[in-house]
Amino acid sequence: MCGIFAYLNFGVSRERRYILQVLFNGLRRLEYRGYDSAGISIDDCLLSCASTSSSSSSSPSPLVFRQEGNIESLVKSVYEDVAATELNLEESFTVHAGIAHTRWATHGEPAPRNSHPQTSGAGNEFLVVHNGVITNYEVLKETLVRHGFTFESETDTEVIPKFAKFVFDKANEAEGDQPVTFSQVVLEVMKYLEGAYALIFKSKHYPNELIACKRGSPLLLGVKELNEDASNGSTLHDSKFLSMNGQPKELFLSSDANAIVEHTKKVLVVEDGEVLHIKEGGVSILKFDNAKGRHGAARSTPSSVQRALSILEMEVEQINKGNYEHYMQKEIHEQPESLTTTMRGRLIRGGSCKAKSVLLGGLKDHLKTIRRSRRIVFIGCGTSYNAALAARPILEELSGIPVSMEVASDLLDRQGPIYREDTAVFVSQSGETADTLNALEYASENGALCVGITNTVGSAIARHTHCGVHINAGAEIGVASTKAYTSQIVVMAMLALAIGGDTISNQARREAIIDGLYDLPNKVREVLKLDAEMKELANLLIAEQSLLVFGRGYNYATALEGALKVKEVALMHSEGILAGEMKHGPLALVDENLPIVVIATRDACFSKQQSVIQQLHARKGRLIVMCSKGDAASVCPGNSCRVIEVPIVEDCLQPVINVVPLQLLAYHLTVLRGYNVDQPRNLAKSVTTL
Amino acid sequence: MCGIFAYLNFGVSRERRYILQVLFNGLRRLEYRGYDSAGISIDDCLLSCASTSSSSSSSPSPLVFRQEGNIESLVKSVYEDVAATELNLEESFTVHAGIAHTRWATHGEPAPRNSHPQTSGAGNEFLVVHNGVITNYEVLKETLVRHGFTFESETDTEVIPKFAKFVFDKANEAEGDQPVTFSQVVLEVMKYLEGAYALIFKSKHYPNELIACKRGSPLLLGVKELNEDASNGSTLHDSKFLSMNGQPKELFLSSDANAIVEHTKKVLVVEDGEVLHIKEGGVSILKFDNAKGRHGAARSTPSSVQRALSILEMEVEQINKGNYEHYMQKEIHEQPESLTTTMRGRLIRGGSCKAKSVLLGGLKDHLKTIRRSRRIVFIGCGTSYNAALAARPILEELSGIPVSMEVASDLLDRQGPIYREDTAVFVSQSGETADTLNALEYASENGALCVGITNTVGSAIARHTHCGVHINAGAEIGVASTKAYTSQIVVMAMLALAIGGDTISNQARREAIIDGLYDLPNKVREVLKLDAEMKELANLLIAEQSLLVFGRGYNYATALEGALKVKEVALMHSEGILAGEMKHGPLALVDENLPIVVIATRDACFSKQQSVIQQLHARKGRLIVMCSKGDAASVCPGNSCRVIEVPIVEDCLQPVINVVPLQLLAYHLTVLRGYNVDQPRNLAKSVTTL
Repeated sequence: MCGIFAYLNFGVSRERRYILQVLFNGLRRLEYRGYDSAGISIDDCLLSCASTSSSSSSSPSPLVFRQEGNIESLVKSVYEDVAATELNLEESFTVHAGIAHTRWATHGEPAPRNSHPQTSGAGNEFLVVHNGVITNYEVLKETLVRHGFTFESETDTEVIPKFAKFVFDKANEAEGDQPVTFSQVVLEVMKYLEGAYALIFKSKHYPNELIACKRGSPLLLGVKELNEDASNGSTLHDSKFLSMNGQPKELFLSSDANAIVEHTKKVLVVEDGEVLHIKEGGVSILKFDNAKGRHGAARSTPSSVQRALSILEMEVEQINKGNYEHYMQKEIHEQPESLTTTMRGRLIRGGSCKAKSVLLGGLKDHLKTIRRSRRIVFIGCGTSYNAALAARPILEELSGIPVSMEVASDLLDRQGPIYREDTAVFVSQSGETADTLNALEYASENGALCVGITNTVGSAIARHTHCGVHINAGAEIGVASTKAYTSQIVVMAMLALAIGGDTISNQARREAIIDGLYDLPNKVREVLKLDAEMKELANLLIAEQSLLVFGRGYNYATALEGALKVKEVALMHSEGILAGEMKHGPLALVDENLPIVVIATRDACFSKQQSVIQQLHARKGRLIVMCSKGDAASVCPGNSCRVIEVPIVEDCLQPVINVVPLQLLAYHLTVLRGYNVDQPRNLAKSVTTL
Repeated sequence: MCGIFAYLNFGVSRERRYILQVLFNGLRRLEYRGYDSAGISIDDCLLSCASTSSSSSSSPSPLVFRQEGNIESLVKSVYEDVAATELNLEESFTVHAGIAHTRWATHGEPAPRNSHPQTSGAGNEFLVVHNGVITNYEVLKETLVRHGFTFESETDTEVIPKFAKFVFDKANEAEGDQPVTFSQVVLEVMKYLEGAYALIFKSKHYPNELIACKRGSPLLLGVKELNEDASNGSTLHDSKFLSMNGQPKELFLSSDANAIVEHTKKVLVVEDGEVLHIKEGGVSILKFDNAKGRHGAARSTPSSVQRALSILEMEVEQINKGNYEHYMQKEIHEQPESLTTTMRGRLIRGGSCKAKSVLLGGLKDHLKTIRRSRRIVFIGCGTSYNAALAARPILEELSGIPVSMEVASDLLDRQGPIYREDTAVFVSQSGETADTLNALEYASENGALCVGITNTVGSAIARHTHCGVHINAGAEIGVASTKAYTSQIVVMAMLALAIGGDTISNQARREAIIDGLYDLPNKVREVLKLDAEMKELANLLIAEQSLLVFGRGYNYATALEGALKVKEVALMHSEGILAGEMKHGPLALVDENLPIVVIATRDACFSKQQSVIQQLHARKGRLIVMCSKGDAASVCPGNSCRVIEVPIVEDCLQPVINVVPLQLLAYHLTVLRGYNVDQPRNLAKSVTTL
């Protein structure tokens, strides 16, 4: 939900053309977070040219470019503007601060006036790029309007630069001798902001400086030293390094690591309440003590803190498409590898004691506590929720503990009971999902043991849970989650094995599952061969308006997730339905036209699904049945329906196999229908706003 | 799911025309249970006419009439056949046994050959009408085919009459002197049947006798004495009454009370494992000891039991449409009255102690145990599940106990953990829903305290739970549940008040809810005035293929239930969506064409819903917003959407109000689209089969 990016070069000469390219490339990496509109701000000229300007100030005026549509629309319009205004692309800056934004519209339709950077007004005294939602913006807006400000956009963000100007002007009226600093202005603004945000400020009054701060939304700082010799070795563990000035360097601020990794692997994950002030090559960090005040205004005084950098565990290849046409396609097809990485070092077979078992390093000290829980509560949103739902039956079976399912927003809406005896498991690919993060705060306040399952080391959920498991699926760029889903299921199956690992009665079952896990990547490789068949099926369904997907037991989740994929990328109204509820309403929709996918692979529910298929046949339903290899005849008497045959694996792992053909179907449907599969309409990856 | 009916007159002369009318009327009352096809069997002639028949037996040959379509199709075809065959409608019988069936197709498409009565073969030696599903029919069929039987239908039922003939023939081969009785034949057949059923047998070999038996599916016997003087007063409490022979009487067998109440209020609710043998005016009851063997074959020996009749608490008016065109319409509009009945005598205000409270007679001895539960688990299907979901937040709030939601079939599919410390609440209008009943058996075996919430006194769920509350909404005939839904919510809100009734901190909240309940029928009367407005809206939506309904918090359930109504009667693909999940996929579907209902009445989630509306606006969504009276401007800036304004009630009761406009919308959409609102395609009321 929106991506923000900034690039500051210090002590190294960069042409305007280069600066623009870095900003555009940064946005391209963040585009999956939103692609309604985009914008950047750079400086108009060197300090030396300021004297020719009509402005009374000696600072350069920041230029702002904003455009509706995706990044390429912005790029095109910027170069057109540059040509029209004869801006010199070869002009060099030894220090320059540029900011950029790609938007997923929440308040106000996609349009240039609602795009970021949002400005304090004519002259661009203060500019802000924002990821998040300011919930009290209406109150702030009223105040500012009373003080004479005019608003141009419908965004919640516009109050921020205007409020900054208001604070700046007030401060300058009051005290003439001691000029107010950029960070003082922003700290004052932050006191009044409610909601979630990551912000980068640029100002005409503080040329070549940037301020970044966050509450709730993610933000990273990347540091690339251009004089490696001077500081090498010591930098990483030296918490004073960041504040050391003077060395030539490039600094990057970004909503996530994807836009940084191609420049540097040295990063600082900014924490809630921190304010980074970048000035003269140094980064000073101020922090509000009151870290809990995420939703309220923090009135405490900030103090200076020092933090050391860490190293990104990520390769540039992860964020490229390789030989594939789309990220979603690449991520579907790399599932055999991502699942292998997910399980690496975690399955124990043989060794000193012969029993097969599971080792989850991040959890092992907490297993005893989890086993004594009154409930295990799975909390997630969208695909992550579905993954938890897929793993629920095996966790119930192996642990014997009741497992409750909670959609994060619903738990918060209801303020549902969570207690100290509960284990709450938070599932989120990005580790930054706003609702899940808020639910984590809620559960944590209520004393539950909080376990995180994320794909992002250093993410908010990874940091704020008591323990957890990293799914190691590698960067996922496609907005529709695919490989993260299967890796999440596998991690939660391993979680079930670990929690249930102390019972003798289930030992044979556990070992069978572990064997199944070892073999799973091969079986996924096998099911991926259905690619052409799914493309053919997509061709048949291309003009349909609706699709139903029926599943039950382990594959209830598969039905929900398969339908969600089709819905979000192919823009077809597909709905996942619990097969057992068929007669309680959904059956009314069945006729000879509506396509229906029925998942009926072998497990304890197979005969019930056969009965469902018979009843759908009795209603002349247009069936597409997914069954285990060799079962075509028994699910589809007389060739009356289309069959998708998939390899059999241990029942609780079957959802990992069964979702793959549906991912492929959604992918091909989207491409055939002519939509952008990596940028589905209205959506964005990692929903970091409420 | 299927209705079965039988009429036996004894010692009183009835013309064939009259007998046919009683059978047809019985079916009309049961038609909501299924309307794919129907059939009846009556006798061809009096015993005295048998001598002229070519048959070697002296019995009359039963005639069978079966027809695809609803009851009126059957009626028409029967009278045509009667005219063609010159059957004498004026012929009188002093004793005659007729059976009838209306079908909801499970195995085999709707067609005469798949309709009931199913027969043993030519000559109709044994005829059976069946409600339920025989799960092991394939095995039985194979055996019978090996013994030379030929099958005509695709039904599971056909094995029953054929197996009866097989048993009868075997018995007659073996022992010539002691003829086998009708009940011996049926008892032998029952030993081999697995699944759920209520059956009525008629046989050429046992003229004027009927056998009825059941496992799982509901069955009632109604008794109308024609010589009231002879037995009045003593009959009800005299368990020997039923077996007393000789008095002239009419006997009725039916799947539910609706088809009996117009004849008599004296009924016997048949229990699982019981076999009723009606012969010479007497009813003898045999029962298998092994009542638990519902799914397996019961091998134990049956013993004779004696049971007393009870009196139906139901009026004939309840099953008439009155001034309305459809049952669904009537039931929507009678909600102010049905809610009043639901609450009657249960709300305590004033009196000796001034505090307001709730009295639920059937629960009061169990409240202490429920308050000490580890979890409360709501279990239901379809609309009943939605009602429980609507009541969940207030139960969590007032009790502080975690409340889990379980779709009955999913709990069974997963075999989810249920323990002695759990309170399991079973919600079912009919009290006979097969999945819910099976879940009850499962939870009961696992030691949970089982609470029933049904609309049907004497139903299986009412009988097999430890305690419960009757919703008293009156007979609901429309297949799409409306008044039962609102009464269920009110009962569960009262349940929450009762469970939470011992805390001081919530007292003010509880009293506000009790005041809200008192006023609720009036508010429902008010919201019903939206009828014309909803008809107008239905007119706008008449041609749409899809509809989304967004809700959250208390009204998440309203979104699901509103969408379910539209789906099941108007045959439009509507989907209820948790508003908090909007950004995790469903938003992709939003454009200027797809109609979206957003429920945004006042409660703690109101501002979040406002934000949802803003985001849908930003995506140009075609919105229909349901809001509290006076809120139109704040939910719909600039008249950009259609608004439905509803009266405000206490937040937790709002779902009762909010569902009404959606019920009306579904009703009008269906009528305008030209569908049968009381008989939605493919569906049937009370899903008593799996």
